[in-house]
Amino acid sequence: MRKRVYNFGAGPATLPEPVMAQIQEEFLNYQGLGASVIEISHRSKEFTKIIEETSERFRRLTDLPQSYKLLYIAGGARMLFSSIPLNLMDRKPDAKAQYVVSGTFSGLAAKDAAKYGSVEILASGHEQEFRKLPEIDAAKIDSNASYLHITSNNTIYGTRWHKYPETGSTPLIIDATSDILGRVIDYSKYGAVYAGLQKNLGPSGMALMAIDEKLLGHARQETPLLLDFKVQADNNSLTNTTNTFAIYVVGLMLKWIEDEGGVATMEKRNAEKSKLLYDILDKSDYYKGYAHQDHRSHMNVTFNLPSPDAEGRFLEQAEKEGLYALKGHRNLGGIRASIYNAMTHEGVQSLTSFMEDFEARHA
Amino acid sequence: MRKRVYNFGAGPATLPEPVMAQIQEEFLNYQGLGASVIEISHRSKEFTKIIEETSERFRRLTDLPQSYKLLYIAGGARMLFSSIPLNLMDRKPDAKAQYVVSGTFSGLAAKDAAKYGSVEILASGHEQEFRKLPEIDAAKIDSNASYLHITSNNTIYGTRWHKYPETGSTPLIIDATSDILGRVIDYSKYGAVYAGLQKNLGPSGMALMAIDEKLLGHARQETPLLLDFKVQADNNSLTNTTNTFAIYVVGLMLKWIEDEGGVATMEKRNAEKSKLLYDILDKSDYYKGYAHQDHRSHMNVTFNLPSPDAEGRFLEQAEKEGLYALKGHRNLGGIRASIYNAMTHEGVQSLTSFMEDFEARHA
Repeated sequence: MRKRVYNFGAGPATLPEPVMAQIQEEFLNYQGLGASVIEISHRSKEFTKIIEETSERFRRLTDLPQSYKLLYIAGGARMLFSSIPLNLMDRKPDAKAQYVVSGTFSGLAAKDAAKYGSVEILASGHEQEFRKLPEIDAAKIDSNASYLHITSNNTIYGTRWHKYPETGSTPLIIDATSDILGRVIDYSKYGAVYAGLQKNLGPSGMALMAIDEKLLGHARQETPLLLDFKVQADNNSLTNTTNTFAIYVVGLMLKWIEDEGGVATMEKRNAEKSKLLYDILDKSDYYKGYAHQDHRSHMNVTFNLPSPDAEGRFLEQAEKEGLYALKGHRNLGGIRASIYNAMTHEGVQSLTSFMEDFEARHA
Repeated sequence: MRKRVYNFGAGPATLPEPVMAQIQEEFLNYQGLGASVIEISHRSKEFTKIIEETSERFRRLTDLPQSYKLLYIAGGARMLFSSIPLNLMDRKPDAKAQYVVSGTFSGLAAKDAAKYGSVEILASGHEQEFRKLPEIDAAKIDSNASYLHITSNNTIYGTRWHKYPETGSTPLIIDATSDILGRVIDYSKYGAVYAGLQKNLGPSGMALMAIDEKLLGHARQETPLLLDFKVQADNNSLTNTTNTFAIYVVGLMLKWIEDEGGVATMEKRNAEKSKLLYDILDKSDYYKGYAHQDHRSHMNVTFNLPSPDAEGRFLEQAEKEGLYALKGHRNLGGIRASIYNAMTHEGVQSLTSFMEDFEARHA
């Protein structure tokens, strides 16, 4: 068996082996400095180079307009669920925002925002058990809303927006935690795109956000200093001692994506990888996909077996075969294969072979 | 020359070699799991064990009363400069707090708190250029204040409270970022003790806080969810996907401290290490200590040479000898040797030898 498993965990998720090997190799001695990258000042010339190159690389990979600021915020996407309304809710006099609830995290985002203003749920997929993205009535998009918030990909249910809604003058804020850099996004069309690092970008505990600078400068007085986007933009996210390890790993991840061919290559690979799995689901009577066919995620493939007992056996045998962390989210159950950028074609093929074999033995 | 330098940086700071070597060794494959510790779920049984053992070990090392909650908060001490008033300011009807300003960070803490209530500067060391801790007039400690805040050790100026003030019924909140676990603290006497990780506990980007549970439950309505101490206490700091790498490293650091003999051993060693340096300052006419003798830090030793030119040469030659990051903070200049728990006796001796040699050649 391979020394490293194929890790289908939803996050913190597997990272590319070359990236992991480099971190390990230089961990005690970063570039001959005689100290680890986690032991040097966030204001050292070495770390300054790391954060600057990381930001430049993200801009290059995403074609990010110069008028967008790139911020690194402690606490991950969940901290941004509070920080976004703290910074943006007061952009318009009505202090209201619209949210689309397409799964668990978009619901949590709306809930956290309600502390800071009037939150309107524009649409919810609740009645369809979040198997589909909810339809949005364009007439209800409110130009007096400070912003409209969606979740790009729903990690738990395995659905995604194949095309983001058109929101006119209302800035669209996109939580792209589970598919950032896994799909091509035209950032210039949106108010902000953000992501917790722990799925496609690095270790957990931090988020990255690209935000149109026009939206800055409306933070409420009680916004904690480190959550004030304008303050962080003015200080290049170095208002305090930041999470240097996380930013270092993001830098390596971005270099890996660039070396592999960029975001379009990732998008293509993710479409291919997920198709391998969806093809199994479609031809099988044994496995049953959770998401509606038109709304399937390319990042999280969710499905059920005929019974929880069968799912238990599936998970147990899969783990013995080096197919790790396939258990669905505790809120939904079933099976979930998270196949972010770092999951290889070979890894997915190992899973599909196992699924075919398991079906042949148990169906 | 050694492969690793003696790293006197103020933070992110040097970590013990055995800890660093273990992280490196198991980085691709945590305990035979076939995945890295940064690639597994914060809710996996492996990480649950890590966070539980880490918290138990901290309690054991500090003799922390069971009525104190231990929290891991994203963003480091600076995030707590906002979170503390958000959580504690409304504990009393007057919504006021008292701060002692003994250096840069205590001043920043007071400034951040002023957003959330009435902040009274009880005493300031400004007039003594922060060479001394300010004297506190016990009669001015206000029992109607929600809390009183001090900084245990002043990293930039190199001073420390040898004995914390008695504050009666007003809870004392202590920022111990630069000397946590480097000195014995009777936690039961204080409202809360907290620290950013990046000096004595691990990598940057997170803080650890031990807080009397009696102080919980007063968070202001607009407190971001992840900064609400009660919420985090109720969820064992796993309200969201936490910074798993940081907590893992803290666990290894605590194990190392325990293996070395515990906090009292660290305290003794730090007294000895700092004495080696202060003895040089005291017998020399060439080096001039910055801090007043009665208030000297055991963690950050600050001093000047006769001229900035001489300091420049000192730093340049020191670096060639593998004595790294001795430059004083940009606000103060001069030389600073940060000698936290992980700095060895041998490292400090290398520095004192260099200092004696440099003085002989240049005085």
